[in-house]
Amino acid sequence: MAAVKLLNCFVSPFGNRVRIALAKKGVEYEETAENMVTKGPLLLSSNPVHAKVPVLLVDGKAVCESLVILEFIDEAFAGTGAQLLPADAYARANARFWAAYVDAKMPECAGKIWKVPKGAPAVEEGKKEMVGVFKTLEGELGEKPYFGGEALGYADVALVTFTPWFLTYERLAGFSIAEECPKLTAWAARCVGENECVAKSLPDAEAVYQFVGGMRKHFGLE
Amino acid sequence: MAAVKLLNCFVSPFGNRVRIALAKKGVEYEETAENMVTKGPLLLSSNPVHAKVPVLLVDGKAVCESLVILEFIDEAFAGTGAQLLPADAYARANARFWAAYVDAKMPECAGKIWKVPKGAPAVEEGKKEMVGVFKTLEGELGEKPYFGGEALGYADVALVTFTPWFLTYERLAGFSIAEECPKLTAWAARCVGENECVAKSLPDAEAVYQFVGGMRKHFGLE
Repeated sequence: MAAVKLLNCFVSPFGNRVRIALAKKGVEYEETAENMVTKGPLLLSSNPVHAKVPVLLVDGKAVCESLVILEFIDEAFAGTGAQLLPADAYARANARFWAAYVDAKMPECAGKIWKVPKGAPAVEEGKKEMVGVFKTLEGELGEKPYFGGEALGYADVALVTFTPWFLTYERLAGFSIAEECPKLTAWAARCVGENECVAKSLPDAEAVYQFVGGMRKHFGLE
Repeated sequence: MAAVKLLNCFVSPFGNRVRIALAKKGVEYEETAENMVTKGPLLLSSNPVHAKVPVLLVDGKAVCESLVILEFIDEAFAGTGAQLLPADAYARANARFWAAYVDAKMPECAGKIWKVPKGAPAVEEGKKEMVGVFKTLEGELGEKPYFGGEALGYADVALVTFTPWFLTYERLAGFSIAEECPKLTAWAARCVGENECVAKSLPDAEAVYQFVGGMRKHFGLE
């Protein structure tokens, strides 16, 4: 077996995608906790371009960028568990489209909620944008249980790691995601309830809120 | 043979990636010209989420987002020509990493040069950032002829479609990319000189400059 190591921060929606993919494949690995302020030497040497988590190291070889890592895991550990990406080329393109949509939209609208001073006008804007993004995602989900169809897939993994942050977004921006987007909320509960690889990979929402509060104090935002 | 249609705008670095991939595979297709201001009904119905080119339609089924389309072409037309992505999982991850890097960096720094009023402070910032991005890319290129190694690959295609814009960046920001980044300039010449699929897919640099000038006038930037 290859020696697999993950550089991650326990709240990272990007890093936790890799946790889920490795758990789904049953790949054993060791996780090294990075904090988001001081960068460890292994993080800097293995991801010199971005100096960001996650980094996956397999026998010392580094793979960076969470969606790239998910594809790598699907390909490098193809024989060890259900694939995240389907076999059909159109279905693969659709999964990649929605994962890219999550990456293009979520960090931006979430950042307007938690990376700005309390009560800044951006918060209201971020909330509206986020609800719009979730409604678009609900439209794609339709009556399917998962974005991947009958089972958790690539786009599900890309999105579900933001759900432990929902409580933080709600408290900081004063809204209820369950009220605004009941279908997405039911999907999130399904992901955790029906998939052990998700349940064991996500942080506690209250712990995320406390962590974000600490970050916000550190950066003088509250 | 499937009926293949591409919705594109002739200057689009994203749409022209698809031209190159289709040409490399020898896939015959029909191109519909979209302009960047008025969106055609087929564009709106086939890419309702982003309403942007490129869209690839194969027997009426739409695939959106340029990098997603490149992967789709590699998979759906696997038997018809050299693959853009290599076979090895690490090499695939590396190609995807650098294509994602281009997408994360190029539109942002280029936008600071051409989407702002003449002489705005952002232009100088955009120029510095762009040179930094190109130097990072030159570091990755090293002594290889292509990012893909011995032959044009996925990351090469992702980047080369920006090269017809170089003249525009240079004129608007007052610098010489050939002087600042000779290795990248040599790579760009190699892509065009050695690959017919690139040469026949890229617009003339002067035509891009004229088009951008028209856009800038339309938006009151000069």
